[in-house]
Amino acid sequence: MPDQPPGRVIIENLEPDVDSGRFPLARCVGDEIAWSVDLFADGHEHLAGEVVVKSPEGFVREYPLQSVGHGIDRYRSPEIKFEKVGTWTIDIHAWIDHFATWKDELLKKYEAEVPIGLELREGAAIAAQAQAKAVYNGDYESAAHIRSCKEALENETLPLAERVRTAEDPKLEELMRMFAPREPLSTLETPRKVRVDRERAVFGAWYELFPRSAAFEPGRHGTFRDVIRRLDQIEAMGFDIIYLPPIHPIGRKFRKGPNNSLEAGPNDPGSPWAIGSELGGHTAIHPELGTEEDFRDLVRETQARGMEIALDIAFQCAPDHPWVRDHPEWFRIRPDGSIRYAENPPKKYQDIHPLNFESADWRNLWNALRDVFLHWARQGVKVFRVDNPHTKPFPFWEWCLEEVRRDHPDVIFLSEAFTRPKLMKRLAKAGFTQSYTYFTWRNDKQGLTEYFTELTRTECREYLRPNLFANTPDILHAFLQDGGPAAFRIRAILAATLGATYGIYGPPYELCENVPVKHGSEEYLDSEKYEVRFWDRERPGNISGLIGHLNRIRKANPALHRNDSLAFHEVNAPELIAYSKMTADRNDRLLTVVNLDPHCTRAGMVTIPLTHFDLSAERDYAVRDLLTGDVYRWHGPTNYVELSPERTAHVFRIEE
Amino acid sequence: MPDQPPGRVIIENLEPDVDSGRFPLARCVGDEIAWSVDLFADGHEHLAGEVVVKSPEGFVREYPLQSVGHGIDRYRSPEIKFEKVGTWTIDIHAWIDHFATWKDELLKKYEAEVPIGLELREGAAIAAQAQAKAVYNGDYESAAHIRSCKEALENETLPLAERVRTAEDPKLEELMRMFAPREPLSTLETPRKVRVDRERAVFGAWYELFPRSAAFEPGRHGTFRDVIRRLDQIEAMGFDIIYLPPIHPIGRKFRKGPNNSLEAGPNDPGSPWAIGSELGGHTAIHPELGTEEDFRDLVRETQARGMEIALDIAFQCAPDHPWVRDHPEWFRIRPDGSIRYAENPPKKYQDIHPLNFESADWRNLWNALRDVFLHWARQGVKVFRVDNPHTKPFPFWEWCLEEVRRDHPDVIFLSEAFTRPKLMKRLAKAGFTQSYTYFTWRNDKQGLTEYFTELTRTECREYLRPNLFANTPDILHAFLQDGGPAAFRIRAILAATLGATYGIYGPPYELCENVPVKHGSEEYLDSEKYEVRFWDRERPGNISGLIGHLNRIRKANPALHRNDSLAFHEVNAPELIAYSKMTADRNDRLLTVVNLDPHCTRAGMVTIPLTHFDLSAERDYAVRDLLTGDVYRWHGPTNYVELSPERTAHVFRIEE
Repeated sequence: MPDQPPGRVIIENLEPDVDSGRFPLARCVGDEIAWSVDLFADGHEHLAGEVVVKSPEGFVREYPLQSVGHGIDRYRSPEIKFEKVGTWTIDIHAWIDHFATWKDELLKKYEAEVPIGLELREGAAIAAQAQAKAVYNGDYESAAHIRSCKEALENETLPLAERVRTAEDPKLEELMRMFAPREPLSTLETPRKVRVDRERAVFGAWYELFPRSAAFEPGRHGTFRDVIRRLDQIEAMGFDIIYLPPIHPIGRKFRKGPNNSLEAGPNDPGSPWAIGSELGGHTAIHPELGTEEDFRDLVRETQARGMEIALDIAFQCAPDHPWVRDHPEWFRIRPDGSIRYAENPPKKYQDIHPLNFESADWRNLWNALRDVFLHWARQGVKVFRVDNPHTKPFPFWEWCLEEVRRDHPDVIFLSEAFTRPKLMKRLAKAGFTQSYTYFTWRNDKQGLTEYFTELTRTECREYLRPNLFANTPDILHAFLQDGGPAAFRIRAILAATLGATYGIYGPPYELCENVPVKHGSEEYLDSEKYEVRFWDRERPGNISGLIGHLNRIRKANPALHRNDSLAFHEVNAPELIAYSKMTADRNDRLLTVVNLDPHCTRAGMVTIPLTHFDLSAERDYAVRDLLTGDVYRWHGPTNYVELSPERTAHVFRIEE
Repeated sequence: MPDQPPGRVIIENLEPDVDSGRFPLARCVGDEIAWSVDLFADGHEHLAGEVVVKSPEGFVREYPLQSVGHGIDRYRSPEIKFEKVGTWTIDIHAWIDHFATWKDELLKKYEAEVPIGLELREGAAIAAQAQAKAVYNGDYESAAHIRSCKEALENETLPLAERVRTAEDPKLEELMRMFAPREPLSTLETPRKVRVDRERAVFGAWYELFPRSAAFEPGRHGTFRDVIRRLDQIEAMGFDIIYLPPIHPIGRKFRKGPNNSLEAGPNDPGSPWAIGSELGGHTAIHPELGTEEDFRDLVRETQARGMEIALDIAFQCAPDHPWVRDHPEWFRIRPDGSIRYAENPPKKYQDIHPLNFESADWRNLWNALRDVFLHWARQGVKVFRVDNPHTKPFPFWEWCLEEVRRDHPDVIFLSEAFTRPKLMKRLAKAGFTQSYTYFTWRNDKQGLTEYFTELTRTECREYLRPNLFANTPDILHAFLQDGGPAAFRIRAILAATLGATYGIYGPPYELCENVPVKHGSEEYLDSEKYEVRFWDRERPGNISGLIGHLNRIRKANPALHRNDSLAFHEVNAPELIAYSKMTADRNDRLLTVVNLDPHCTRAGMVTIPLTHFDLSAERDYAVRDLLTGDVYRWHGPTNYVELSPERTAHVFRIEE
């Protein structure tokens, strides 16, 4: 038997929800949620419910649930706005509304002209309870109003009609909703959580660059100071996040040479992901990049321009990482006493030791890894790109991200997991703010449509935020290799308009670098992963201008700041894709049409669902191409578009 | 940080399941379940899992999970058979399979001809752990085998090929599965439950009768002894459950007269649902029906014929019920001290007091209600039809049914809730064994198809077992009123073949009684609810013969003992409906075709999905009409059927 009389109202099928409350919903500051829920109880009494929202600081506010229709037992809250970063707690309260039940029955009986003297006394008794509650709450004004109603209800000297009118008093109804007894109260068996992140968690443009290639003259190892000198240029391209591959000392043992060769020459810099040397590990800085002070200056100068630095956190160790010496128990030790390196038999990665999360000393290992994030957060870094999180245990991430957020609720974690869908989704549920996606491998209309429909129309929209990188140091897709500069323009426009968050790895991207290490590979030739490169950023044919233009369009158009309005539209040409995003108030409606063929001009009729955009079938409307400024007068749902390799896309703003 | 190192394998999307484990799956003895589940872990190691099943007595057995295909992270258990009534507990265990991972890598390296000396020593180390576990478990034979393998693995004097062969030893693989370490182990966050009921919970034919109308001469109040004298006849009709409306003393105050009139005459017997008088309440017997001994004799005589008595438990009280006097706090007391009667304003039901589950004395009320079930269970009654459960709190039922089952796990509860779908489903989840349905109101092809597809093809099949009553004392549907005897035959055949459990209220049903109290009402004229009736059970035109025939067909054909194989088939005539049920081994395949039009002959082509029935498109097959014995030779998928009001249905057995 329960300890307390259990609530009679059943609460079921809350939406939105992630795995019956096992994981939080992910939202950003200013986002709104309207919950729907089934409420029903035994018997035929009226019921009432509300969503009870507790802010990260513990302030509580209630939002009433309204029936969405008689007899279907479904209720809906108003749009509830989340104004502050942090974890909010959500409960549902539901109860039998004895006052509403009483009033309903009273009025039916009054209409049927049956005696209601006893009923009026019953109503007065309910009011007396509410009056006591108001007094208890110190709300004497409300208590006085309830009391006067109560006295009118039970006053047999008053005309019946007047007593019934008292029952219908709207002010009384409002006060009864506040003060009438709700016991036994029903609540959620599992209270829900909403993790509210800052705006940048969902909307931002990322620019990845290797600081060691940032020097202004060929042959020199770039530094943080060089990056600082390049900030104006990156800002001019309109990026929000500057993401640096690992900045830590690079291991010497088994260091890789150019193009991932096994033998490094004495001057080869090695891979930044081979972390750690006698100079330090995950909290140290590679001396050739600069000092801690240089790094803090970079963080500060970046922030001064409205941008942020993102660091790459890769939990793996070069053989000369201090942890290998100080904590060999954090690795797998082989029978000969050696430490196991990474491998995918028969391939060997001898420059990398994976951590052993099954270590008996797992608690210290977990704490040390968390402390890496905390260290950099204290240096002002609030954005982390986490390398291969799917090769570390999910329970570790669930714990670690929460731990970091406790002190730094504004931290953003990007999950770099290119793996099976269920793992990517679970990492998002476990607390990663953003996720890399399969975008680079979705290059045709069907692939893009299906994938982005899944991301924006299924339950995963509640917890997984896609970050659309158009390339990475590991991924130069065949589409870019084969499609010339048009391919780079196409993919930049797709990334910037399909995804509220997207990124490129530059300068190779804006310079349209398209040579792979060999045919059939997605690796770059002479990859920066293994050597210092010098880039002529002003090289003719670069698309920095387009990228800057795209990022300005993104900033100016709130429709592009979220993904939930994404809708695909019909075009009767397989190479043309059309899709739109708009704000809830439809003040900003963007229609993008892209020619996915980088080689040929393609044309077709695009079908605009007029009602979707609140457009009239009778009147013309204007579409302004934000890329060119051209304005077209369109009429009706079907309109002609033609796009060439030179002019790969329209980003239309519908303006009427 | 967790107390223990958490398991690395993630367990998600278990199926079948009810509300993420909040409620048990409902199954019967002998039923099988094959679970599917997502399993995945960080990294690239092999993983393993099993379903751990604990019987009601606490015996544990494991069933291995097998991958359903590479890269999709989905696993499936074998069919797990439940052989005993009671609540079974289910967990999933999953772990990184270090031995399988090791073996896989070893063989790849061996094939690539890289050195594997260290690897073999690592394998020996894993074997050593397993050996220790086998010794700990006292399994010295296994330990010895593992030890000899271990020694071969690490024996550098043996040829490499032989050591690798040892790694591939199937017996070693089996023993490693049993004994190799599984820590850190992943388990379900919420262990699941399966409530296993006896066969009668899902398969049975119910016969409702008023014992007070069982007398053998008109004008006399029937008794339990009369019912005993009628058992042979009921048995001849093939029923399994004889369900009696409430058998308790009937209240005198505000007793209802014939046809629900407000004024009862001095000899009017009142409604059996107006429970309780000075002669007793829910544990007492109405004296005119007989004594407790008579009742026990009836229970015994029924059981001797392989049938059972079901009692109607209606938790409401006539004004003269002893609880009204002894426990006024269990009711709603009005301001004038009177006890509130049931009403649906402006309608009043003054012969009934509902219980007040919000009573401060709710604990004693709950216990008293549970004790009603326990009282009758001690008298040998193991089947209860619960009246209007949706007007009592759901948490009460969840507690009460579990309490009764603790002492009497073989008890069957039928939920008489004709209300909104969500409430009916929740009652089933809360523990009711069976549920009344909307069957009586589904009289056309679309309505029947949609409703039974929902019941048998959606998640509700996991917990809700339909009981298809063709009529009740409250429901004489217009279809029966207007369709003559053909309508009664149609609905009996539908009920008996669509539902593994079905029922009729007799003798009105088999006598084709079709006169309502007034036009537009579903109430019977001169309803037994308010008076004693005398029925001429041999009356010409009765369909007792058909019903007996149907029940014999049901018993002989295991396809009709479950609902999960129900499939609807195409007929190109809107009045004809065709559907089938078959056993998993396809040894029993029944195809039913019913003419839903009681007035006209209808014909059409029925489409048989041949592969569904494992039939060849090349060969003839035979369909034997179990109602007539006629055999038809059919060929191919499309065949002609013609059904008249005299011959309303075929119940074909497909025999080849």
